[in-house]
Formats: sequence, structure tokens, C-alpha cells
Amino acid sequence: MIRKGFQMAARLGHHRAHPGALNSLSRFNSASVFGSSMDSVVSRTCQEKTDLKNYASPNASWCPDMLSLYHDFLEKTKADGWVKLLSFKSNRDHIQGFKMPSGLQVTSDKRDWRLFTRCIETEGQGYEYVIFFHPSQKKSVCLFQPGPYLEGPPGFAHGGSLAAMIDETFSKTAYLAGEGLLTLNLNISFKNLIPVDSLAVLNVDVEKIENQKIYMSCIIQSRDQQTLYAKASGIFLQMSLEKDSSK
Amino acid sequence: MIRKGFQMAARLGHHRAHPGALNSLSRFNSASVFGSSMDSVVSRTCQEKTDLKNYASPNASWCPDMLSLYHDFLEKTKADGWVKLLSFKSNRDHIQGFKMPSGLQVTSDKRDWRLFTRCIETEGQGYEYVIFFHPSQKKSVCLFQPGPYLEGPPGFAHGGSLAAMIDETFSKTAYLAGEGLLTLNLNISFKNLIPVDSLAVLNVDVEKIENQKIYMSCIIQSRDQQTLYAKASGIFLQMSLEKDSSK
Repeated sequence: MIRKGFQMAARLGHHRAHPGALNSLSRFNSASVFGSSMDSVVSRTCQEKTDLKNYASPNASWCPDMLSLYHDFLEKTKADGWVKLLSFKSNRDHIQGFKMPSGLQVTSDKRDWRLFTRCIETEGQGYEYVIFFHPSQKKSVCLFQPGPYLEGPPGFAHGGSLAAMIDETFSKTAYLAGEGLLTLNLNISFKNLIPVDSLAVLNVDVEKIENQKIYMSCIIQSRDQQTLYAKASGIFLQMSLEKDSSK
Repeated sequence: MIRKGFQMAARLGHHRAHPGALNSLSRFNSASVFGSSMDSVVSRTCQEKTDLKNYASPNASWCPDMLSLYHDFLEKTKADGWVKLLSFKSNRDHIQGFKMPSGLQVTSDKRDWRLFTRCIETEGQGYEYVIFFHPSQKKSVCLFQPGPYLEGPPGFAHGGSLAAMIDETFSKTAYLAGEGLLTLNLNISFKNLIPVDSLAVLNVDVEKIENQKIYMSCIIQSRDQQTLYAKASGIFLQMSLEKDSSK
């Protein structure tokens, strides 16, 4: 059961007419309905949970660039329609009350599950990041500071650590913008290495939603936009989470 | 200085005629020279260092599939020309006696640097993997078992954790096959999710080396080849490491 992957999910999506995804598609194309439906997904996802640590919060390891841009975006959440995404230790916490679609469900257990980009708990050593999402403009910004556990070439972030950060930012954006759940394709062109401990800014745009697929682009650069670190594109499959009646 | 990335490195490569890379290119195309030159890179990279832990060794967390395929490949190292790659905590240990080319050098310090795919030390929780390389066939096999800290969708490996594993396997293959040092492009199509704690087998082939670039492909599947997890391609830039005379 656990071995069934998302080819099956994709098949389910096609053959069962995938009502949730199609709904979200039409929502996405309808400005009037779009707002309210997306708002409920966004507010559910960004709901403060007092019993869970939110990792998308400043700590002593954040470099001055990261901290100041964080505060700039925090200001934008008050007036410009940006939403700050909470970030828990596991996706299991993010989808509380819901479950993955048939074929992707696993029995829950009490192991120490961690979202990959939150796998290192020591502040500043691994992933430091926070994602802001703009529902009506269908875009995201991720402030990412790689620590010394994310090294590839000496002193620089591993290409794979950036790939994972891009995938995770795509993932949260795809879900909030149109119930995009699974990565179908990830294409990254690397231009410059990111020095460990410095800030890289990921700008994600949803380009289109078509045939249950969400197409996104991402530009990764320094805060002053003078250094282009990478360009990427991503395609995600739309699938609706199901209500979890067992909880 | 630390902010200069590999666009600069690439420029250096082009404008300075990049003798090392060109040498490796000609070596790669010359079967007679190829063997001995590559052998020295392989033997240097795979040299046992008694003071360093080799993470590419079986431990109690390895699933039966992983353990048995590991022993199959270990047998192949005795007769079939396969080489088992050692895996240290940081790339700094792998390139002892050498340094990155100009523009990519950083001052060394005593921080706890870790190669991204060795960022989690607890056995079975993060990345468990071992890479075997075949010098004359220019291909690699990586046995990869994702732990619960690499989660994306509940119960399955994060797409980004697989992306990083692919990038790291490409990286070691590119370096050994032709001094490929930096990822230029990574393109991954995901087909099925990899269940946490199970084995995924990455098969990497060097397709061609042209204009200082190494082109590789990768197929990721279950051991019985019945489940295709992903297909990927990668392009790496050739650059020679420099002798580190300070050590």
C-alpha cells in the first residue's frame, strides 16, 4: 500500500475527473470566487498553532540582509496583501484535519518525522528560511540562508540544497495557488554559487494552470539583484487533500 | 572575494584556455591515457583515511534490499572493475591537498562543515547512501535509502531530497569521469514517490563530454526495476582543482 506512488495518483486524477482539482482550476480563473476559496486554504495553512514551533521566525543566526528583508516583508503583510507562511517541523502538522488522496496515504506513527527543509534543528547550521505568499498576484518570495551543514563546494551551498529549497517553495506556492501537491518536473540552471551564511532571495511566479498542472518559474538572486544564483521552472500536479474524518 | 561564483569560474575556463579541463577532455577521449589518469583521480578520491569516518558503510538502519545490493556491488569491485567511493563528512576532506580554482577559494576555518548529503549524523534518520563508480564504463550506481528526516508528503521522501541525492551522485561521477566540478543544469522528472526507509537505486551514465561540459543521465528506480521513481539529466562544468601548496 505504502509503495503506490503518484503515477497512480495521476491516474486517479484523470479517470475520476478529479473534482477538487478542476474546482480549483475554475476558481483560479475566476477572480471573484478565487479570492474567497484561496483565502480559506491560505488561512488554514497559516493558522497559528500554539503547540507547534514555527520555524519561520528570526533567530540569532540570521544575517543582517535576511533580517532586514524579513521586516520589510512583514510590513507588506499589513497593507500589500502578502501573507507570511508558518513553517512546522513536518508536513503532517500542516495538513492536520486532512489526509493525502487515496494511494498516497500512510498509517501514522509516532516517529520523529521532519519536513526535509526543517531536518536540521540547530539554528543557523542548516536551512534558515521564511516564505511569503501573495494570493492575488499568485507569487511567493522565499528568504533563504544556507548554513554550514548545507555545504557542497567548500564555503558554498550544495546545488542540491538549493534544489530542495526551490522545490519546497514551489510546493507551498503550488498548494496555496491551486492545490498543487506533487512535483512532476524540476529544472534548474545554476549561474553562481551561494556563499554559506548569506541571503539568497527566491522569487516564484505561477505562470499558468492547465490540465491539472501548475507551471511555475523561479529566479534566485542576491538581495541587491546584482548576482543571479539560478533560474528554475517547476510543474506540479493538482490533487485535492481529503477530509480526515478519523480525527 | 567569497561572493564570486562560477560565472567567473566559467569565464576563467574559457578565457584562460582552461588547461586542466582540456587535458581531462583529451584524456577522456583517449582510451590509453584515460585509464591511468582517471585511475589516479579515483584512487586519490577513494583513499582510505584512518582518521576520517567513512559514511558509505552499512549500519543497522539499512533495509535488507540496500544491504544485499551493497554486498552484490562489493563483489563486483573485486572482479568487474567497480570502485566503491568513500564518503566523508565534508568535501573539504575529499579534496585534501588540493584547493578549488581561483575565484572559488575560501579561507579555511574550524567550523563544523558538512557535505549536505551527510548533514544528518544519526543513523537511518537522514541520508543513507553509497556510490559505486565504474571508471572504464563511465557510470555510477548510488544506493539511496531516505530516512524520516527527509520527508515531503507524509511517509515519502521530499522531491528536494531526491534532487540533492541526484546532484551529489552526478557531482562525484562528473569529477571522477572528467573533473566536472560545478552543476550547470539539473532537470528531474518525478514519476513515483519513494517511501521513507526503502531503497531507491540511481543509475548514472556519462553521455558525453563536450566544450568543457559533462552531460549525464540518471534513472532512479526500485531494486526490482518495477517502479520508476524519476528520470534526470545533469550538465557539469569541467574545472581542475589546484595543488594546495600551503599544506
